Amino acid sequence: MPELFQVLTVEEAAARFLPRIAPIPETEVVPVPEALGRVTAEDLASPMDLPAFPRSNMDGFSVRAEDTFGATEGLPAYVKIVGEVPMGQAPAVRLNPGEGAKAHTGGMLADGADAVVIVEHTQAVDATTIEVVRPVAPGENVIQVGEDVRKGQVLLAAGQRLRPQDLGGLTAVGITAVRVRRRPRVTIVSSGDEVVPPDREPGPGQIRDINTYTIGALVREAGGIPVPLGIAPDREEALRALAERAVAEGDLAVFSAGSSVSVRDITAKVISALGRPGVLVHGISIKPGKPTILALVDEKPVVGLPGNPVSAMVIAGLFVLPAIAALLGLRDPPHRTEVTAILGKNVNSIPGREDYVPVRITRRDGVLTAEPVFGKSNLIYTLVRADGLVKVPADASGIPAGERVTVRLF
Amino acid sequence: MPELFQVLTVEEAAARFLPRIAPIPETEVVPVPEALGRVTAEDLASPMDLPAFPRSNMDGFSVRAEDTFGATEGLPAYVKIVGEVPMGQAPAVRLNPGEGAKAHTGGMLADGADAVVIVEHTQAVDATTIEVVRPVAPGENVIQVGEDVRKGQVLLAAGQRLRPQDLGGLTAVGITAVRVRRRPRVTIVSSGDEVVPPDREPGPGQIRDINTYTIGALVREAGGIPVPLGIAPDREEALRALAERAVAEGDLAVFSAGSSVSVRDITAKVISALGRPGVLVHGISIKPGKPTILALVDEKPVVGLPGNPVSAMVIAGLFVLPAIAALLGLRDPPHRTEVTAILGKNVNSIPGREDYVPVRITRRDGVLTAEPVFGKSNLIYTLVRADGLVKVPADASGIPAGERVTVRLF
Repeated sequence: MPELFQVLTVEEAAARFLPRIAPIPETEVVPVPEALGRVTAEDLASPMDLPAFPRSNMDGFSVRAEDTFGATEGLPAYVKIVGEVPMGQAPAVRLNPGEGAKAHTGGMLADGADAVVIVEHTQAVDATTIEVVRPVAPGENVIQVGEDVRKGQVLLAAGQRLRPQDLGGLTAVGITAVRVRRRPRVTIVSSGDEVVPPDREPGPGQIRDINTYTIGALVREAGGIPVPLGIAPDREEALRALAERAVAEGDLAVFSAGSSVSVRDITAKVISALGRPGVLVHGISIKPGKPTILALVDEKPVVGLPGNPVSAMVIAGLFVLPAIAALLGLRDPPHRTEVTAILGKNVNSIPGREDYVPVRITRRDGVLTAEPVFGKSNLIYTLVRADGLVKVPADASGIPAGERVTVRLF
Repeated sequence: MPELFQVLTVEEAAARFLPRIAPIPETEVVPVPEALGRVTAEDLASPMDLPAFPRSNMDGFSVRAEDTFGATEGLPAYVKIVGEVPMGQAPAVRLNPGEGAKAHTGGMLADGADAVVIVEHTQAVDATTIEVVRPVAPGENVIQVGEDVRKGQVLLAAGQRLRPQDLGGLTAVGITAVRVRRRPRVTIVSSGDEVVPPDREPGPGQIRDINTYTIGALVREAGGIPVPLGIAPDREEALRALAERAVAEGDLAVFSAGSSVSVRDITAKVISALGRPGVLVHGISIKPGKPTILALVDEKPVVGLPGNPVSAMVIAGLFVLPAIAALLGLRDPPHRTEVTAILGKNVNSIPGREDYVPVRITRRDGVLTAEPVFGKSNLIYTLVRADGLVKVPADASGIPAGERVTVRLF
């Protein structure tokens, strides 16, 4: 393989590439209801205690806890109900010893009350008196001021991807707009003399572009903006022109090289010539995806994907998506969406090489089975028919049928 | 619990509600690059064989397989190279016996060739002759016409959510626009006299709206369009007016009821009066989320969520998201995004009730631990601090620390 100057493991390749990608500096402020999936650009501290007042956590009666001490079924405490605190209002009643007020879940307590007796532990004696049959401790059935979050506490750290509950957590304390990192622009160049756009009728020997669309969709899922720049022919000058545009216009440039060796060589040469430090990795011990290129051009990350659609998607998952996460300043890598399943057929591999095998998941009697979808990496429907990938680690020579495997879902 | 006329298990509740939701009839045609996450509305058949021509799967030489039969290192077959088939072009050469042509990965074979000898199994003798040291069978190293998909074959069935590789599978066969189901409109009404919009300063006893934003974001993630209708006060007439609008304008209406019993009673009453058949489920044996309402009003699904933000999100995950999937006609429920982890602390439960416990996932030495985030279901930051939920099944009285549990990720 003269084209590959040094074949690295996946871990070595990642270590040489990903830590050198800095978050993009630009941020923007977006309204909270539109911030789903965006990544926070700064620590957000709470401007207030939440809740801001002691809230009843149950329906019942707010009381002075000491008035209930020692109460039992046989010897109940008698409490005079002197009023009610309606939802969303300040209490109009103040309790004297032996008095209580009707309380609603989420409402305030009466002035002077420090606990709530739940309605199930009371019995009405007459229109204004109840028996309390169990004692409550001070603070019982009450959510204290700041129990959810305290004023000044960090609500969300910088670098967190906003989930539904995070948006609710922000509106709860009155934060209605949030500073997030700008979405990274990811330029995508397909290359190959055989590749034509999908709306064109391919001539003999020609195929329609796939990678622009699969990679574009992956970029969108990861929080980037795909910027497809079209198809470059297998000539160095033409590819160079498009490559320069890709690096200039993108925060990350992704090339999907042609599938033949000569074209891959052109791609590597063009990327090397774009700027410093240039190619960091060329060739990874992985199947599919060996002829991968990872580069840095004037601080901008560049990924050269193999042209085969299956290889391109596997490599994009391992390097393009983490590169986008790095550009977003994402603090924790997203928890992988994985399921455990029983491998349905033997999978062979070569020790020293990390393999990714597409599998289809079926459920029989509640047990998940991962059926390998074998197919050449030229075949996009190998992935369409699959639900995820099983990794065969570099130190294994395969996985026998019947083993438990972790499936990384698409 | 006089408010709940019959408490059902989660499965019973789902069985009574979800099968009655029909897919919305309207569809629309969208360009493939914008179709990520949309759901197909019809079976899509391939208009062509893919690939449309036999493609070389390797770099090497296209040959007549029979010319290589019996070839070995000691007794190689000699093949005269009479030309090259460039990428993206029809072959200009026709092979006579004993002849071959240079082939590129993804390119066509020469006319008359039926196999490809990989370059590693050849040796150059002179400028136009190679030695082949291993025989190839007919079809070897060749992707046959229709090997990826055949003309007329169903590419994607109706009811599939489009993933990146599905988009690439469509462009590969020249499908550039796809008929998908219209996104369901999900109207959302918050209620409660204590609830104010997030941009308003709450008075004493008031809190800011959370559920409109958490539920809206969940709806968006599931492929629906959230339509927030605002906050209804705890008066029957006011709530009824907004509820009628919610059912009229939405394909699915979601109410987040106030948290006190009286308000929940009003919500149930209003939903019952909206139309036929009305309330199907009122009360589920689950924690949090017991006072859930599931209804059908003139064929439209209606979900009454508990007002507590944690309960609201748990119940939305169990009933609102599957309802959206049903409206979209989604064929297979999405594979749950789950991880297996070791439970970090004991979790107690009551047999007969399904419990959902928020957990935070930490990784130590490669082992995932699920640490329960205990907190009242009024506290939204219980969920902000959590990565997912652990289910305690109805037949268990808890889960001891150290057990392997499945965490359903947010």
